[in-house]
Amino acid sequence: MTRPVDQVLAAVDAGLDQSLERLFAFLRIPSVSTDSAYAAHCAAAADWLKADLATMGFAAEARATGGHPAVVAKSPGGAGPHALFYGHYDVQPVDPLDLWETPPFEPRIATGPDGSKRIVARGACDDKGQVMTFVEACRAWKAVTGSLPVGITMLIEGEEESGSKHLFDFVRANKADLAADIALVCDTGMWDKETPAITTSLRGIVVDEFKVVAADRDLHSGVYGGAAANPIHMIAKAIAAIHGPDGRIAIPGFYDGVEDLPADILADWKGLDLKAEDFLGAIGLKHPIGEKDRLLIEMVSSRPTCDINGIWGGYTGEGSKTVIPSEAWAKVTMRLVGKQDPVKVRDAFRAHIRAQLPADCRAEFFGSRGSAAIALPWDMPVLAKARGALTAEWGRKAVTIGSGGSIPIVGAFKEDLGLDTLLVGFGLEDDRVHSPNEKYDLTSFHKGIRSWVRILDALAA
Amino acid sequence: MTRPVDQVLAAVDAGLDQSLERLFAFLRIPSVSTDSAYAAHCAAAADWLKADLATMGFAAEARATGGHPAVVAKSPGGAGPHALFYGHYDVQPVDPLDLWETPPFEPRIATGPDGSKRIVARGACDDKGQVMTFVEACRAWKAVTGSLPVGITMLIEGEEESGSKHLFDFVRANKADLAADIALVCDTGMWDKETPAITTSLRGIVVDEFKVVAADRDLHSGVYGGAAANPIHMIAKAIAAIHGPDGRIAIPGFYDGVEDLPADILADWKGLDLKAEDFLGAIGLKHPIGEKDRLLIEMVSSRPTCDINGIWGGYTGEGSKTVIPSEAWAKVTMRLVGKQDPVKVRDAFRAHIRAQLPADCRAEFFGSRGSAAIALPWDMPVLAKARGALTAEWGRKAVTIGSGGSIPIVGAFKEDLGLDTLLVGFGLEDDRVHSPNEKYDLTSFHKGIRSWVRILDALAA
Repeated sequence: MTRPVDQVLAAVDAGLDQSLERLFAFLRIPSVSTDSAYAAHCAAAADWLKADLATMGFAAEARATGGHPAVVAKSPGGAGPHALFYGHYDVQPVDPLDLWETPPFEPRIATGPDGSKRIVARGACDDKGQVMTFVEACRAWKAVTGSLPVGITMLIEGEEESGSKHLFDFVRANKADLAADIALVCDTGMWDKETPAITTSLRGIVVDEFKVVAADRDLHSGVYGGAAANPIHMIAKAIAAIHGPDGRIAIPGFYDGVEDLPADILADWKGLDLKAEDFLGAIGLKHPIGEKDRLLIEMVSSRPTCDINGIWGGYTGEGSKTVIPSEAWAKVTMRLVGKQDPVKVRDAFRAHIRAQLPADCRAEFFGSRGSAAIALPWDMPVLAKARGALTAEWGRKAVTIGSGGSIPIVGAFKEDLGLDTLLVGFGLEDDRVHSPNEKYDLTSFHKGIRSWVRILDALAA
Repeated sequence: MTRPVDQVLAAVDAGLDQSLERLFAFLRIPSVSTDSAYAAHCAAAADWLKADLATMGFAAEARATGGHPAVVAKSPGGAGPHALFYGHYDVQPVDPLDLWETPPFEPRIATGPDGSKRIVARGACDDKGQVMTFVEACRAWKAVTGSLPVGITMLIEGEEESGSKHLFDFVRANKADLAADIALVCDTGMWDKETPAITTSLRGIVVDEFKVVAADRDLHSGVYGGAAANPIHMIAKAIAAIHGPDGRIAIPGFYDGVEDLPADILADWKGLDLKAEDFLGAIGLKHPIGEKDRLLIEMVSSRPTCDINGIWGGYTGEGSKTVIPSEAWAKVTMRLVGKQDPVKVRDAFRAHIRAQLPADCRAEFFGSRGSAAIALPWDMPVLAKARGALTAEWGRKAVTIGSGGSIPIVGAFKEDLGLDTLLVGFGLEDDRVHSPNEKYDLTSFHKGIRSWVRILDALAA
């Protein structure tokens, strides 16, 4: 007789069109969390998810957090461990809108250059598509067997793209409610189209915003030009001083707590042989800009970074304006690794910016937040089970990698709930997450659902 | 018996309220020339001016230029020379709008900190207020004597704030129509509240705009951060390299054609003793940022400059976005002096920017234009007449100064029409031209009208 898992996998294949319809409905909701103008849409996305999970027999609620609501949904399971699944329903802003080939919130199936099918929409991958791989896997288990192999609590938040502002308090305030044996997250990527991956380390992050102020008003460059400090030049000078010619970050103390990789991991990564022409070639670049003495894969996963994400000042409209502005602004994010302290890094950054400014200029900083990097135990028991399940689905040994991204809440799962987190995702490097024309391969979605079906089965064993 | 000029001056004093009403009507028209959204308002300002001049008996027309119309108005005069008066009815953009205490196009009379009255509105000084000092002087002469002491052709354009784009061709195409013996311009400033000035040199200008491009799309800093070139950092590096630590502009060849002042002028300027605490103190600054070995007055009038007027790139909305943008943009203006060649300076700037960029980044440049600096002959015959008239009105010897600003068309008056230009204006350093809350002292307006009444009288002598 066929094992239940095979019947469930067959059900996934048979129901793929309906699974896609549900994903598309989810993607049509413009749940941009960083812009308060979209607050109602974030609430709508939470309600949509709550209703969908309720139809599967989950006890689902959209809970207030002080920001956008968090969806909490529970379903008991068999003898196996209880799992806390985390994902987010909010998405990145869509600008620059004019670079989208079709409207970002009108999902469609497109054909990629290699003939493969892909889902195109904001959130197709990050994170609505990935969340739905898990939701659809649970749906299939329930449809076929009437229950789940393991008990599941879902926590789907709406503020991941704006730093999970309120989720940390929410987790602390709901420890009993979120209690579990293991945390599962689907917000990471594959190694490549064929090779599944489990992410065992995540970079931390510090977010800051600042302005450089000179004169107390905008000035006419014909009157004051040559004498008055120009804050655009001064912020440029400060930003130019962040990196040295060797690609290292020149902020004093920035690298405190950064450790080199264990020799065996470094050897594995050398074996993966990530090439600039492949990784950067895909986006029209050739030359890694990081520390000259590091592997490319280190630069993007195990080394810290500092990137200005936005800059503005003076006249940016049509034509020209001979103005020396009073202020210039910038937004920055720093990716942390190892034992770097977010507060110390933030303060070191601020001191470095201030140190570059002349007497007549001052810098003011706003809205900083941060989270330290995290690394999961390599000997985590469920790791072997998940690797087995993924290897079975994809026919290739699943690799364990470090992620350059940050999922701050995973640190809180460990600290506040005592949970290790299994990070499995099906994103690809060319998914354009955070960019125009974001996509998620149909294979990632389909085999992602199948992968979770197998992982849930393995966790129960 | 009283001389006509005294009767005309008395008429100016008696009619000041009506003069103000006319200026306010002119100021209420939002004739921003750099933004095509305001094109209809520019046309309306030209029509208003044409109609007003017609009521004074001028043969007035709003003439097509390929851009915003130029107002040309003529009235014959007595035996004296024929004068071509130039000014502009267009104004600077008003952003940042939220820094205006009252709406920029709702002119009002305010009281300054010293108790003096001032006209507050965009264009109050630059250049509507200044243009109307001349127009009202003509009106008074006509009202009292029925004619003008000298023949006058007015040329009031609508594109000065966007580089007089089409006026150069217009002047070349209408040489006969604009023929005169001397050009008069009212778009400059006084030395201080009490001391009138005649401007005898103007800086030239080069305007350019550029973008630095790295990847072919916006990137997720968590995926590519540390490896992919960030164009914001690269444009910052390029901008930071424009000036050296000594305050000099570090662009190779930039200073070609820049000459030191004649010893006697330098001596005069040392005598004027322009102090940083006065000139910069008024705008909340203390330390001149220019060449360390130069006088402050040289920095702002006889030395070349390079100022970034606007910069933008990446995410500039609310909250944060972990993006590495594909492009970063900047707008620049350079003020030229002496024999600097605008084309050579532009090319040197572009080469310098490109030289700062790494292999994966490229710079693209857009919409440059330029004009060389001009210097008027110190022995220009009408100079003495104008100095006499100004000294009589203000009770202080009028000084001759260099202006840091640029009025490109003055070069064309010399080249195409063979005219020297007498630059007399009544603006003050604290007028906030190009800034929020632009103002024009009521004294500047009133005594400005009276000054032109006297200058027209003197020119006829």
